Amino acid sequence: MWSVDDAALERIAIGAGILGTGGGGNPYLGRLMASRLLAQGAAITVVDPDAVPDDALVVSVGGMGSPTVGIERLQRGDEPLVAMRALERHLGRRFTHLVPGEIGGGNSTRPMVVAAQTGLPVVDADGMGRAFPELQMDTFSIYGVRPTPAAIADPRGHVALFDAIADAATLERHARAVTIQMGGASGYAFPVMTGAELKRTAIPRTLTLADRIGAAVLTARTAHADPVAAVLAVAGGQRLFAGKVGDVRRRLEGGFARGELRLEGTGEHAGRALLVDFQNENLIARLPDGDVLAVVPDLICLVDAETAEPVTTEVVRYGLRVVVLGIPAPAMLKTPEALAVVGPAAFGYPDVPYAPLSGWYGVGAGRSDW
Amino acid sequence: MWSVDDAALERIAIGAGILGTGGGGNPYLGRLMASRLLAQGAAITVVDPDAVPDDALVVSVGGMGSPTVGIERLQRGDEPLVAMRALERHLGRRFTHLVPGEIGGGNSTRPMVVAAQTGLPVVDADGMGRAFPELQMDTFSIYGVRPTPAAIADPRGHVALFDAIADAATLERHARAVTIQMGGASGYAFPVMTGAELKRTAIPRTLTLADRIGAAVLTARTAHADPVAAVLAVAGGQRLFAGKVGDVRRRLEGGFARGELRLEGTGEHAGRALLVDFQNENLIARLPDGDVLAVVPDLICLVDAETAEPVTTEVVRYGLRVVVLGIPAPAMLKTPEALAVVGPAAFGYPDVPYAPLSGWYGVGAGRSDW
Repeated sequence: MWSVDDAALERIAIGAGILGTGGGGNPYLGRLMASRLLAQGAAITVVDPDAVPDDALVVSVGGMGSPTVGIERLQRGDEPLVAMRALERHLGRRFTHLVPGEIGGGNSTRPMVVAAQTGLPVVDADGMGRAFPELQMDTFSIYGVRPTPAAIADPRGHVALFDAIADAATLERHARAVTIQMGGASGYAFPVMTGAELKRTAIPRTLTLADRIGAAVLTARTAHADPVAAVLAVAGGQRLFAGKVGDVRRRLEGGFARGELRLEGTGEHAGRALLVDFQNENLIARLPDGDVLAVVPDLICLVDAETAEPVTTEVVRYGLRVVVLGIPAPAMLKTPEALAVVGPAAFGYPDVPYAPLSGWYGVGAGRSDW
Repeated sequence: MWSVDDAALERIAIGAGILGTGGGGNPYLGRLMASRLLAQGAAITVVDPDAVPDDALVVSVGGMGSPTVGIERLQRGDEPLVAMRALERHLGRRFTHLVPGEIGGGNSTRPMVVAAQTGLPVVDADGMGRAFPELQMDTFSIYGVRPTPAAIADPRGHVALFDAIADAATLERHARAVTIQMGGASGYAFPVMTGAELKRTAIPRTLTLADRIGAAVLTARTAHADPVAAVLAVAGGQRLFAGKVGDVRRRLEGGFARGELRLEGTGEHAGRALLVDFQNENLIARLPDGDVLAVVPDLICLVDAETAEPVTTEVVRYGLRVVVLGIPAPAMLKTPEALAVVGPAAFGYPDVPYAPLSGWYGVGAGRSDW
């Protein structure tokens, strides 16, 4: 059990930005809201999943919607709380724990806001170990947690509850349709799970991972060391490519930012190029001859070559000097049932076999159990 | 209090078809489903609104979605029941009465199905006195019944509940967005109201009106009399035009069937033409020189010149011989607060003043209180 203070919020936001693999929304807004609540005397407690009782009533809270809209619209900050309270009234029970749905991007810090608002502890775990463009792409639903009852809320307090939906993809479609009507962003509360279900389905200790990545980056920056190398030292994975951003093609399709970017190699990669496709998040990194260096669900993270600041698909632009990191996905995303939902074929690459990156996911070497 | 038998279902379906003013969906599917339940021993009871206790818990049930999809998709027939039961669980209370949301079209008979399934009585009233393209265009919400909590359900049993939405137009947008995701049609249960609210806001005795219109048509057909004149004798209003359908332009826009049709006059109207615009329902009937003969919320009903069978905007086609009836809207649709929601301006005719048709709405002459 540990307390999240302002410094931890900063570290987690940095780590979550990198684990966002180009998408996931901006963690800074949630960080600022949580930080304000801390300054007003609130507390945020993180508990290890092993410490969650089997009969705990856990809910995942966060925001859904296009990342761009999220930044502009999710200003009130209590949408996930309103959704959670509506779900409690619907269930006739109170939740005992919160858990992030995705550690990558904005949904890493939004549960902190709800924790500060309610005093509920946040479980050190999440359902993705990274970010994904759709909410059903999580280990909770992949491993059998029922997606409903579920609730979403908008800044005006409007609530939509969903029930009796057995498949998470249908919930995602229904909830996204209402979210669009709500102005493009909503706070969500789902799925509901017991402590036992959480421990069986969540990817453990990913808040700790984000915190350690952020700490490594900040320490390296202060010490004038290499922050990119510091990330890899903590989080495993490899430098896939270093280069300058060339062409970026970006289009909005069905609420998603889709596109491709081309990097022109620098340093050890001079004279070579790398192509990266994205759908909110980076999906595949390949050479112009077609060789795949990394593919979803492995994490493909663009970071600024100097500062290791995450370069999201929203802000990536011509001329930026970046390093592309390839971080192996957590083991729970690499099972056959997970790959059916988050593997290359699920993202429109039926002919790309999933060849796992070597390395580990989690804090420090050898944590292949993560 | 009266019982609906098979013959009454037939009469109500005919009357509701005419009161659908070109839209409202097809009443025959609900009629067939209710008829099947009657044959299995179920009963359907209709009660006068004056007989509903003030503390009754009333809910409107029916189907939403595009009429075309409705015919093909609403096959299970228990979607409104599933929505109603979900709403009861959410409220923690059981409903005591059902009321149609709109007497025009399919939502006249769908509550009969739920009545047969549950044994709940149906109130002889509705929220429109006709059909309108959007669910918030009802006297319940116009006169202050809160639109939520509300529920919709699809044929797979998926449920969406909406809460804390104060304006019916927002509920309409949210519910329609989910309905589209549900395949284009859903069963609904909303709004919830007390008996006192029902009596204050509903348009009374419209099931009786539909029944009497249907009876008049059937009697006239059997007697080889003029069914069109029989409709007018019961329901008031006037023959606006008799003619042959010429051009029909129809397009799907935002889930609505919009378009225009042109009638070439026959008989007493030979040599003249009439233009009718529709959005699911007929909105305005005018002469080519711009003179408006009738405009929403007054009822503009196309019926077959021989049989008085309603000719909906779905089936209207070149060459049909029709009579256009103009039936005055019920008084509750003609107040300033109602005209703001269902007047010409609300349908995109800001420059058309509402000039009420003369005549009455309801059964028999002189019922201007309806």
